[in-house]
Amino acid sequence: TEMKLPGQEESDLSSASENVPTGELDSGPGSGLSPDGPLDIDSRELEVPKDPPLFIQLNELLGWPHAPEWKETGRWVLFEEKLEVGAGRWSAPHVPTVALPSLQKLRSLLAKGLVLLDCPALSLQELAEQVIRVESLSPELRGKLKALLLQRPQHLIQTPCISPCWGSAHSREASQEEEAPLKEQHQNPRRQKFPAGAEAGAVLAGQLGFLEQPLGVFVRLQDPVVLGPLIEVPLPSRFFCLLLGPPTLGRGYHEMGRAVAILLSDLQFQWRVRRASSLHDLLAALDAFLEEVTVLPPGRWDPTARIPPPKRLPSEHKRLPSQLRVAKGPSLRRRTPAEDRHGRRQRAANPELRRTGRKASWYPSDFLDALHPQCFSAVLYIYLATITNAITFGGLLGEATDGAQGVLESFLGTAVTGAAFCLTAGQPLTILSSTGPVLVFERLLFSFSRDHSLDYLPFRLWVGIWVAIFCLVLVATEASVLVRYFTRFTEEGFCALISLIFIYDAVGKMLTLTRAYPIQRPGSPTYGCLCQYPDPGGNESQWTSTNPKDRDDIDLGLVNASLLPPPECAQRGGHPRGPSCHTVPDVAFFSILLFLTSFLFAMALKHIKTSRFFPSVVRKMLGDFSSVLAILLGCGLDAFLGLATPKLMVPREFKPTLPGRGWLVSPFGANPWWLSVAAALPALLLSILIFMDQQITGVILNRAEYRLRKGAGFHLDLFCVAVLMPLTSALGLPWYVSATVISLAHMDSLRRESRACAPGEAPSFLGIREQRLTGLAVFILTGISIFLAPILKFIPMPLLYGIFLYMGVTAISSIQFTKRVQLLLIPAKHQPDLLFLRHVPLSRVHLFTAIQLACLGLLWIIKSTPAAIIFPIMLLGLVGVRKALEWVFSPQELLWLDELMPEKERSIPESGVEPECSFSGSDSEDSELMYQPKAPEINISVN
Amino acid sequence: TEMKLPGQEESDLSSASENVPTGELDSGPGSGLSPDGPLDIDSRELEVPKDPPLFIQLNELLGWPHAPEWKETGRWVLFEEKLEVGAGRWSAPHVPTVALPSLQKLRSLLAKGLVLLDCPALSLQELAEQVIRVESLSPELRGKLKALLLQRPQHLIQTPCISPCWGSAHSREASQEEEAPLKEQHQNPRRQKFPAGAEAGAVLAGQLGFLEQPLGVFVRLQDPVVLGPLIEVPLPSRFFCLLLGPPTLGRGYHEMGRAVAILLSDLQFQWRVRRASSLHDLLAALDAFLEEVTVLPPGRWDPTARIPPPKRLPSEHKRLPSQLRVAKGPSLRRRTPAEDRHGRRQRAANPELRRTGRKASWYPSDFLDALHPQCFSAVLYIYLATITNAITFGGLLGEATDGAQGVLESFLGTAVTGAAFCLTAGQPLTILSSTGPVLVFERLLFSFSRDHSLDYLPFRLWVGIWVAIFCLVLVATEASVLVRYFTRFTEEGFCALISLIFIYDAVGKMLTLTRAYPIQRPGSPTYGCLCQYPDPGGNESQWTSTNPKDRDDIDLGLVNASLLPPPECAQRGGHPRGPSCHTVPDVAFFSILLFLTSFLFAMALKHIKTSRFFPSVVRKMLGDFSSVLAILLGCGLDAFLGLATPKLMVPREFKPTLPGRGWLVSPFGANPWWLSVAAALPALLLSILIFMDQQITGVILNRAEYRLRKGAGFHLDLFCVAVLMPLTSALGLPWYVSATVISLAHMDSLRRESRACAPGEAPSFLGIREQRLTGLAVFILTGISIFLAPILKFIPMPLLYGIFLYMGVTAISSIQFTKRVQLLLIPAKHQPDLLFLRHVPLSRVHLFTAIQLACLGLLWIIKSTPAAIIFPIMLLGLVGVRKALEWVFSPQELLWLDELMPEKERSIPESGVEPECSFSGSDSEDSELMYQPKAPEINISVN
Repeated sequence: TEMKLPGQEESDLSSASENVPTGELDSGPGSGLSPDGPLDIDSRELEVPKDPPLFIQLNELLGWPHAPEWKETGRWVLFEEKLEVGAGRWSAPHVPTVALPSLQKLRSLLAKGLVLLDCPALSLQELAEQVIRVESLSPELRGKLKALLLQRPQHLIQTPCISPCWGSAHSREASQEEEAPLKEQHQNPRRQKFPAGAEAGAVLAGQLGFLEQPLGVFVRLQDPVVLGPLIEVPLPSRFFCLLLGPPTLGRGYHEMGRAVAILLSDLQFQWRVRRASSLHDLLAALDAFLEEVTVLPPGRWDPTARIPPPKRLPSEHKRLPSQLRVAKGPSLRRRTPAEDRHGRRQRAANPELRRTGRKASWYPSDFLDALHPQCFSAVLYIYLATITNAITFGGLLGEATDGAQGVLESFLGTAVTGAAFCLTAGQPLTILSSTGPVLVFERLLFSFSRDHSLDYLPFRLWVGIWVAIFCLVLVATEASVLVRYFTRFTEEGFCALISLIFIYDAVGKMLTLTRAYPIQRPGSPTYGCLCQYPDPGGNESQWTSTNPKDRDDIDLGLVNASLLPPPECAQRGGHPRGPSCHTVPDVAFFSILLFLTSFLFAMALKHIKTSRFFPSVVRKMLGDFSSVLAILLGCGLDAFLGLATPKLMVPREFKPTLPGRGWLVSPFGANPWWLSVAAALPALLLSILIFMDQQITGVILNRAEYRLRKGAGFHLDLFCVAVLMPLTSALGLPWYVSATVISLAHMDSLRRESRACAPGEAPSFLGIREQRLTGLAVFILTGISIFLAPILKFIPMPLLYGIFLYMGVTAISSIQFTKRVQLLLIPAKHQPDLLFLRHVPLSRVHLFTAIQLACLGLLWIIKSTPAAIIFPIMLLGLVGVRKALEWVFSPQELLWLDELMPEKERSIPESGVEPECSFSGSDSEDSELMYQPKAPEINISVN
Repeated sequence: TEMKLPGQEESDLSSASENVPTGELDSGPGSGLSPDGPLDIDSRELEVPKDPPLFIQLNELLGWPHAPEWKETGRWVLFEEKLEVGAGRWSAPHVPTVALPSLQKLRSLLAKGLVLLDCPALSLQELAEQVIRVESLSPELRGKLKALLLQRPQHLIQTPCISPCWGSAHSREASQEEEAPLKEQHQNPRRQKFPAGAEAGAVLAGQLGFLEQPLGVFVRLQDPVVLGPLIEVPLPSRFFCLLLGPPTLGRGYHEMGRAVAILLSDLQFQWRVRRASSLHDLLAALDAFLEEVTVLPPGRWDPTARIPPPKRLPSEHKRLPSQLRVAKGPSLRRRTPAEDRHGRRQRAANPELRRTGRKASWYPSDFLDALHPQCFSAVLYIYLATITNAITFGGLLGEATDGAQGVLESFLGTAVTGAAFCLTAGQPLTILSSTGPVLVFERLLFSFSRDHSLDYLPFRLWVGIWVAIFCLVLVATEASVLVRYFTRFTEEGFCALISLIFIYDAVGKMLTLTRAYPIQRPGSPTYGCLCQYPDPGGNESQWTSTNPKDRDDIDLGLVNASLLPPPECAQRGGHPRGPSCHTVPDVAFFSILLFLTSFLFAMALKHIKTSRFFPSVVRKMLGDFSSVLAILLGCGLDAFLGLATPKLMVPREFKPTLPGRGWLVSPFGANPWWLSVAAALPALLLSILIFMDQQITGVILNRAEYRLRKGAGFHLDLFCVAVLMPLTSALGLPWYVSATVISLAHMDSLRRESRACAPGEAPSFLGIREQRLTGLAVFILTGISIFLAPILKFIPMPLLYGIFLYMGVTAISSIQFTKRVQLLLIPAKHQPDLLFLRHVPLSRVHLFTAIQLACLGLLWIIKSTPAAIIFPIMLLGLVGVRKALEWVFSPQELLWLDELMPEKERSIPESGVEPECSFSGSDSEDSELMYQPKAPEINISVN
């Protein structure tokens, strides 16, 4: 799953091509429809009286004078949909634009027209009676007009079949007296889009030859009434507007009709008109609208161009009528800077970091809340992601520790610790997993103990015990509060290092393979292999020297030989002889092909998710299961060709991978007793690592934008991880901490969204199904999967390396740091319109990036030296470097590029946060901040 | 080089992310600056008096009351650039937007302010004197104001260094009396952007505490005057506007200043204000502007969002003052539909298809026009593309004809025919080359003659002679006029078939390789190879049976053996024995890797061209030479690993590839005499093919949008091709016709563009350097390259297959047909806003696509049967199918999806072309058509 970064705030327009609905996590409040009515979020915050959502339809009078008929040519909820007359389809929703004169003409037409507020009509018939009472009309004309109004309009009803079909209303035009909503209206699939209480507004416009002067009628009905077949969906209408006139104005009536519709679709105008008591109020509302419009100059903008809906709408609460604004006063002032910029609450004030003890009260609901079909698909998705993780990390761990742990341990450990954590943790949405940093540390620890001839598993047991002790101390001292010092700088350094290690390891493993399966060059003397049988003459000594370098040895002389392959040769009592007996050809290059295939295929599937192809369900499936599908494809290819590629090693029985050990690790083994004390030193390092890995994940998961209701549990989570530590160590299982990405994917698969949303509007995010059951089910399934060994042994290792490369590349390309590195390569004039580039000089941005690169280089160098094992301390050193940056960069710059550390945050006077505040003044600058995507910085693709 | 399709008219906004300047060929007229002044193209067409371009700068008064200073915070030519105060850089150019009230406040301020038209001031000093004579000011305030006006403003001068630096004007603030333009102003690199005669407009705005009421001054200078350091570039100013007031309005003055600047940057407003003689005229111009503005509703649009410049500006001639419009009357009416939609002139009226005899008069200029440095880089680029083509086609031709022709013939033929064509042809920009269709035909002809045991080259000679005769008959009967029946349907069918053959062949060749170099599976008994020497006992008979299937044979018994590799074994008099002696391991997979590498690398480089990375020069280089770089990379990889991959076969001496033949092909060889007559039959087919290939290319190259001045020569070109035919046939060289893509690339590398363009505006296209010298130079270089053989023999064949795959994929993905096939996979609501989707029902679009697919399938089936050789007739059959489509689709639909055939075009009454005409009426619908990219449909990537 991919999430947007705060740095990705290219103007909504430039990223419009990505505007295809995806499962992104960052859909912000929005101000549109939702089951709770419009102004969903804002209204809750501001206690504005809720108005029902309004569907506006423009029926246009066409075909005058020969065969006048009404045709629906436009509709609005938030955005405009236009009827493509030739193509017989609705356009994509787009931002409505209108020429200024249309609005002005509309104003003057309404000013001298008929305005009925709180009209008591109860049917279209009654409404028509009211409407035709215009002074200027003769009784004859009134009759003609009424007949015209009652004529059934043509709707383009988008039936569920793919090609649009015209509603059959056209054919039944005769039965005009029918008032009840038609079958087509009820069957209209759009109807389900509207929440209960939604109302409609009908706009009728066009040229009418028998009128001598323009006719403008605006009606607000006392009670909303279903106006027969006037509206394509059987919603009760609240507003009715009629704009007809002689054909002198041409398309002017169409444009005026659009102008009325656009006005009515504006929430502020609607609010005012619902409360208007006179023509004057109506015109005042129109003028208030005009006060706020933005103008596009004619020579620079093609008026027929359609602007796709912006990802984020301007906040409505800024546009509230002033009486409401004043009433709410202080709460409308600027938010705290940290919240504004990065969508996080200030951590100092974050209740998640305080002891609350409220967790227990949620426990029953943690199971009841899971009773939703969405949870099934979440379980399947996360289960597949978890076992992919378990297989890949298990495979790598097996290699890193020379088989001391393996895939079986990985499955068992994941299942046991994961299930235990889900049952007890403070934040049960977290998924425990092997993680990159711990894998790296484990590899270092293993090479250390191998270099010093230590018995690895017992040594590791003591490390685990000490880590548990240290972590419990951290819990007791409430050290989780230190999390506030982990700014984006630290997170990015951590993430970038781990990603680079993934990439480096994946490529490195592949190169190792080509050494194990050497490539046969024409010059290299790798030809020749025969099966030599014991000679009757018996020069057995020859068998020992098979060095192909020795050219003399190549001449065998008279031998008793066959051409059997080496294994069969050995069976028959012979001895394979010759350099090519020991090489397996073709495997090296085929492995590279498999590696590239799985990597590129997974990347391609991930991109499909944001493409336009296929229905969104299919797209989401392909994207979510990209790595599973890539593994399946690779396995198929491998099985088809049947080459002896190196495969995943899986034990055939339920016993530890390392031959000859029981499940329980002996506490000392071959190690001296003092090693159990000395283990405290590496344990200290590992504790730092686990603390950082666990808490950075915790911070990301508990961000305010996910709207978790049940609160977090930083201390409780660390406590659980600490308690599980000695358990896994004693059983020789891997160590587990919270895995950022898989947990985010878990939350993403459980997100609740409003269903009823206007066309073009992104569905609004309501929260996460917070419960313990999905996680538990995932880990029970993982436990059962231990018996998958007969299938798993067909997975070639190069495939897994490819998936690791994919994970590394995805993770590193998702952080803002990477975007800034890319900026180094982009000439200034082609740079995207990033928000921080608007506010920080480019040279300062580059300096910040360069410092991060230098830190990363230093960490990499340390990781490559014998001192590698201390790299957790160096990671912690990033916090220090970040602190030192306060001398180099101004707080404002750090606020844009990173975020502020706790003390600094308080030290800046509120007004001084933005250097241009005094200059710009400025609502406009401020409002930019409202539309920033609020999403986590770190995104490591799961599975 | 990539070109946009007419179908790609997604709204300018949705494709905004692609808006990075590239070397695309489709930059249309535009209405902006050019060396000929603004309104470049339109003005030439409409003879509007030309106004000089205007640079508008907004200087804002900041820092009042402590340290008031002027700072440049915005600038305009066509689009707005905003100063990012915090970042100290200019924003990217964007469409200026302004709030409506700012325009209205500006209007009322000007209405009661001071308006000086034709002010005779000659310096800033004099101007300041004039400006301060406002009644409401006391003499003391006038002095303060004058001092303020003379204060030097701060400019952000973008020096050529990457990071922006503040101009040093700041430090020299003391010397305020200086009037001459400053050094920084002269050094400003933007200065070169402006053509001679460009003028400036200075807008000064801000809050000024000592004023009691707002002050608005608008000055039009009689003669433009350099106003000292007021403007960042030393352009003479024509307009001056001062908007100051008490600090009650806040940012209002800034916004009013922007409003004035936006007004002045509008060409129509400018036109009116230059001719205004009173305040009334000024206000009328403002009102006329307001009449035309488009309005964005406040709730749906964030006013701070920036709209990137549209690719195509609205046409200014629609907005001309009415007096001019009336004067030009008829020419402003709708253009002919064919021209509107597809940017082609109606072919019936196309002078290129008439005999003119004008060509000779251009001949001297065809050499003189080449004296421009641009021609050098064009020669290099096209030379590399040509030899890549010669190598790839030569290699494929060698395989297709079993070595009857080869790379040497390809080089020689390309050089000789190309040079001859360049010297004599009617359109010397055309590059002759082997093309896909001819290659396919040659392969079919060869297998035909092999199947019937004919002597190929003599048979081919007669085919060539007959083709020449047929083509000359076509020339004599002026059959090129038939070209008008080749609509987009035919072009796409032709292009798609050829592309698919490329893709199919490339992949097929790779699979053939894996048969030649079998993969060694563990089960397959390919182990074992020894070198057996003649046994003293002498059972020589064993040598003959080395069938590895025969298991008994594997047991050799007592042999005299060594493990020498096969070649050495044979040298020493031994015999290689065993299945693995005959296999070359690793080559198959490595070939696949090379194939994929060259394909993916070339694709990636092509995409870099449209990315944001690297300066545009580097990007263009990488994109243009993508296949050359891919070949170099592949060769390097191949040389590094040193595997025995199959390499390109190049003769070491200058003699025909086929051993034992002289350069001249004997007229009969081993064939019976009557075959020379029978050859007329395949020749007829080949003539059709050559006619279609040659003329489709000719039509594309001579499209109106390339603005060729010297005219085309359809008949002459076909004549040249026909004459070269027997020549190449007699020498056993390949046959040559015009190659679409390489010729388009040639034209592209010779395009002339206006340099002086406004920020954000695409450079406007002026024409092509039409001459004969570049082509001639390319072919002379190609001739010299015949002696490159020692280098060429290092090129592995899989690389060339990869490049062929790249060419096929690029070609097929560039036609509208492919976009329509993709539409089949895209759900209706995610489909891009293509123009034909607005006007043709989706089901009809899909039907059209399905018919094309069926035709393609039929062509493919015919190509695969023994009747394959008649496929040129089937290609011609596409024209018939297209004709038959007129019964299935309405002319309107065909107009949107294809184009009309000559008779039909005339048969449609002008008013009936669009079904919705009567309904929409409608300037707005019409104007959409103006912004369609005008570019060729077919795009086969070169090199």
